[in-house]
Amino acid sequence: MAERIAIIGAGPSGMAVLRAFESARRKGADIPEMVCYERQKDCGGIWNYTWRTGTDEFGEPVHASMYRYLWSNGPKECLEFADYSFEEHFGRPIPSFPPRAVLHDYIKGRIERSGIMHYIKLSTAVRNVTFNEETQKFTVTVKDLVADTLTSSEFDYVFCGSGHFSTPNIPEFPGLTHFLGRTLHSHDFRSADEFAGKDVLCVGASYSSEDIGIQCHKYGAKSVTFSWRTRPMGFKWPARMDEVPLLERVEGKTAIFKDGTKKDVDAIILCTGYLHHHPFMEDSLRLKSRNRLYPPNLYKGIFWIDNPKLMYIGMQDQFYTFNMFDAQAWYARDVVLGRIKLPSKSDMFDDIQKWTEMEEAIPDASGAIDFQTEYMRDLLAPTDYPRLDVDAVAKMFKDWEHHKMDDILTYRDRSHKSVLTGTLAPVHHTPWMKAADDSMEAFLNQPSRVAAE
Amino acid sequence: MAERIAIIGAGPSGMAVLRAFESARRKGADIPEMVCYERQKDCGGIWNYTWRTGTDEFGEPVHASMYRYLWSNGPKECLEFADYSFEEHFGRPIPSFPPRAVLHDYIKGRIERSGIMHYIKLSTAVRNVTFNEETQKFTVTVKDLVADTLTSSEFDYVFCGSGHFSTPNIPEFPGLTHFLGRTLHSHDFRSADEFAGKDVLCVGASYSSEDIGIQCHKYGAKSVTFSWRTRPMGFKWPARMDEVPLLERVEGKTAIFKDGTKKDVDAIILCTGYLHHHPFMEDSLRLKSRNRLYPPNLYKGIFWIDNPKLMYIGMQDQFYTFNMFDAQAWYARDVVLGRIKLPSKSDMFDDIQKWTEMEEAIPDASGAIDFQTEYMRDLLAPTDYPRLDVDAVAKMFKDWEHHKMDDILTYRDRSHKSVLTGTLAPVHHTPWMKAADDSMEAFLNQPSRVAAE
Ligand SMILES: Cc1cc2nc3c(=O)[nH]c(=O)nc-3n(C[C@H](O)[C@H](O)[C@H](O)COP(=O)(O)OP(=O)(O)OC[C@H]3O[C@@H](n4cnc5c(N)ncnc54)[C@H](O)[C@@H]3O)c2cc1C
Ligand SMILES: Cc1cc2nc3c(=O)[nH]c(=O)nc-3n(C[C@H](O)[C@H](O)[C@H](O)COP(=O)(O)OP(=O)(O)OC[C@H]3O[C@@H](n4cnc5c(N)ncnc54)[C@H](O)[C@@H]3O)c2cc1C
Ligand SMILES: NC(=O)c1ccc[n+]([C@@H]2O[C@H](COP(=O)([O-])OP(=O)(O)OC[C@H]3O[C@@H](n4cnc5c(N)ncnc54)[C@H](OP(=O)(O)O)[C@@H]3O)[C@@H](O)[C@H]2O)c1
Ligand SMILES: NC(=O)c1ccc[n+]([C@@H]2O[C@H](COP(=O)([O-])OP(=O)(O)OC[C@H]3O[C@@H](n4cnc5c(N)ncnc54)[C@H](OP(=O)(O)O)[C@@H]3O)[C@@H](O)[C@H]2O)c1
Repeated sequence: MAERIAIIGAGPSGMAVLRAFESARRKGADIPEMVCYERQKDCGGIWNYTWRTGTDEFGEPVHASMYRYLWSNGPKECLEFADYSFEEHFGRPIPSFPPRAVLHDYIKGRIERSGIMHYIKLSTAVRNVTFNEETQKFTVTVKDLVADTLTSSEFDYVFCGSGHFSTPNIPEFPGLTHFLGRTLHSHDFRSADEFAGKDVLCVGASYSSEDIGIQCHKYGAKSVTFSWRTRPMGFKWPARMDEVPLLERVEGKTAIFKDGTKKDVDAIILCTGYLHHHPFMEDSLRLKSRNRLYPPNLYKGIFWIDNPKLMYIGMQDQFYTFNMFDAQAWYARDVVLGRIKLPSKSDMFDDIQKWTEMEEAIPDASGAIDFQTEYMRDLLAPTDYPRLDVDAVAKMFKDWEHHKMDDILTYRDRSHKSVLTGTLAPVHHTPWMKAADDSMEAFLNQPSRVAAE
Repeated sequence: MAERIAIIGAGPSGMAVLRAFESARRKGADIPEMVCYERQKDCGGIWNYTWRTGTDEFGEPVHASMYRYLWSNGPKECLEFADYSFEEHFGRPIPSFPPRAVLHDYIKGRIERSGIMHYIKLSTAVRNVTFNEETQKFTVTVKDLVADTLTSSEFDYVFCGSGHFSTPNIPEFPGLTHFLGRTLHSHDFRSADEFAGKDVLCVGASYSSEDIGIQCHKYGAKSVTFSWRTRPMGFKWPARMDEVPLLERVEGKTAIFKDGTKKDVDAIILCTGYLHHHPFMEDSLRLKSRNRLYPPNLYKGIFWIDNPKLMYIGMQDQFYTFNMFDAQAWYARDVVLGRIKLPSKSDMFDDIQKWTEMEEAIPDASGAIDFQTEYMRDLLAPTDYPRLDVDAVAKMFKDWEHHKMDDILTYRDRSHKSVLTGTLAPVHHTPWMKAADDSMEAFLNQPSRVAAE
């Protein structure tokens, strides 16, 4: 009987696995049966926008953490699939920082055009994954959300690509119970319009805080205050934007910070990151990690060391995204197809140790980029994934960091060069701060709405 | 070996079960071992307030649908436990419509004073319930949220008291994706302060819509519009409050209704009710129902007809609340203790049919009150639950409905008489529309903050 593979999630990670196996199949390989379970109505993972927050129409947690007006925060040239360029998808070069809908179209396009949507069972939530030592098989229990029924099936391999930027990490701050404004986590942030004319406080000093803060500024917030725990972001903030130490407590509408300073605010947006949350995994299979570049117990950042037939894709903190999930998927595929042999458990353990020590020695953001570049190189070497010039990508990431330091409001107006096609991206028709319409049509054609000064 | 009972949830329903068995134990009965699993950090069910929305610190769905400034919407004399009066708890008579914290204190007080908190395992979520036909036992799998571990145990009986006003029913309306204001469900409504000065649209024509609308009005909303699907609530609305037909679509900030009328709004609050959501139950044990007075497949509204060792408490739509959960718990307890014998399956089926036909013939709100009063009488007759004059309670419910029709803003200023103690409740020190502080201290003593005119 053919071997069977279950893939959890049809986001960029799950879709990378489908594409990797399909690519082998097209080149003549015998591949196992595959089924990809996706809880949402569409593939694309966190790139699916919804106005919903909390739970969806079936009572399932809303996966989306993306908001209206979200644009790529990294150059698209850094995440480009090596086997499917933006130029191939759109038929022409496009600017470096596209809005959400454009990236969603690109990810989904690769899957549709390779004719592999039929592997995906939409509106199907994985509820439970267990492993039977005797039969050496996984039992995966899923809920068909539309039919409202549970079914279980057996698999030889499980790929978990369920994402880790969806279940919010929501710390408590004294006084929030009586705060006379609105409190929300960045996961539930949807539209900057709601904060026009408001004094907004963003707690956290990473990507969500930075981007939600500048979105609110762009759409007319009265002021934006960022509150950091470990260190400030340190960008050159324009007027009406400011960084302060950690929030200590709230009284009425007043936020009081560690250094004793105060600020009256209308809304507190907790941009405090996300939890690794895989509630469907039995204890012995469940990854527990904070958001980091090398999560524990995963050989090559993929294989669950106690049972390498379970593979986690995309579970690391991310500079590289789409192409990293591809690199992982191609590597894992080759292990499943017997093209790459896993070493002994103790060798795998030593390898994890080595990478973890390297991770712990990372000095700064530039070091973090180098670390993940090294990781990419390591994964890419043995597979037939098309050549990707990771050194050029690493350089682009570093340029991008400098652009952000130069001006956090204009880094998205820069152009980067595709390492696949060599094309330098055209400049967008409208500077980002004035591009109020984030639709694909406006981005690809002419703007239908330009922000007022 | 002693029989074992699992209770899911330590809200009013789960606590009623604990209290019912403890009451038998104190009178000398041998009772089974009990364990009550509660996902939240405290008992009290939906009466626990939290500023959180979406998921909690463990990534579990936030159970609370209650908001700051929520006051009882029915007279406390209608829900009073027959074995524990408000006067016994507070040591003196209190007004008829207490705020949330006061009712939470009352529910929790009965459990604390009977010394049965130790049966409750807090921060423990039930993940899975299955039944084994061979052993005739249930396997209940729970997650200790703090330890982050799963364990399974066997039980002879399961009581499900997980509530059904927690997982929102969130319909789609065309245009919400591009709505330029805030959209939320009543489950995520927390503080009326946030809507001061705003034009608010409440979709739905039941208790949540009514109460959230008047809360927003009380705390300074610019206008409140209610949108109904089946029929308007028909109260005498004051200025700046209005009822309109169902929302058809949204354009920009404009809500467009079925009759073609329009209204520009800042926020759309979907007060569209809740889903019965029991994701931890295997298919053959899972109650599927809409919010109704007699959910399907439950003999006496309690016993799962295909397996009456599974009992659902509190799963009906509710006029009666706390004392109805008690009536159910006492009845179910007596079945477990062998004091009441269940009839044959076909007799149970006929009984369900009879009640369902009665339910379907209910003509109006007054008929609904009579229906649930009949249901109460039927449950109370065979048990030793202290005498409860349900006719007097039914009359009180009908008076209350009239008071609401007279003036929706002042019905909470009325006094009702306890059917246990005969005491007529004192008038509150501040009319509800001016009582801005909803704390227990303010309610029981003097107001610390009175709303401006
Ligand atoms: C706010 C935000 C902005 C971002 N912006 C960028 C950006 O600009 N550029 C960039 O490169 N990256 C960005 N990212 C990173 C993003 O995480 C990755 O781009 C990518 O989406 C990760 O892919 P994934 O497949 O691993 O996870 P996800 O995209 O999260 O997809 C996981 C999928 O698994 C499904 N799933 C989860 N649980 C179950 C279950 N039990 N059963 C069935 N299906 C399940 C989900 O429904 C989802 O479809 C952003 C992330 C966030 C949170
Ligand atoms: C907004 C609102 C206002 C209301 N106001 C009133 C009022 O004024 N007067 C009135 O009498 N009634 C009111 N009610 C009705 C209310 O539902 C009842 O008073 C009562 O709380 C129902 O009790 P319950 O125990 O059945 O459910 P809940 O109170 O919902 O309690 C269920 C418990 O089960 C727990 N639980 C759920 N799933 C799991 C799991 N998987 N594992 C472990 N534990 C779990 C929950 O955490 C919760 O503690 C109101 C309801 C709502 C939604
Ligand atoms: N396309 C876009 O524009 C865009 C926008 C948003 C997000 N994203 C992506 O989304 C992903 C997640 O980013 P993220 O910023 O949400 O998460 P993150 O990178 O994990 O950062 C979490 C932040 O929360 C802070 N934090 C955590 N707990 C805290 C506490 N108790 N008190 C105070 N601060 C606390 C952390 O501070 P410490 O540093 O002190 O730990 C850190 O600053 C990233 O991949 C990012 O690229 C992209
Ligand atoms: N203490 C308090 O003050 C207080 C406050 C709020 C709630 N509560 C309690 O909370 C419980 C739940 O009340 P609830 O009002 O949330 O739920 P509910 O009583 O079940 O009412 C649901 C409402 O939503 C409407 N609805 C459902 N789907 C819709 C759709 N697709 N489009 C338009 N309308 C739709 C229904 O309209 P139809 O009639 O057309 O079906 C109904 O009006 C009750 O027990 C109540 O007592 C108490």
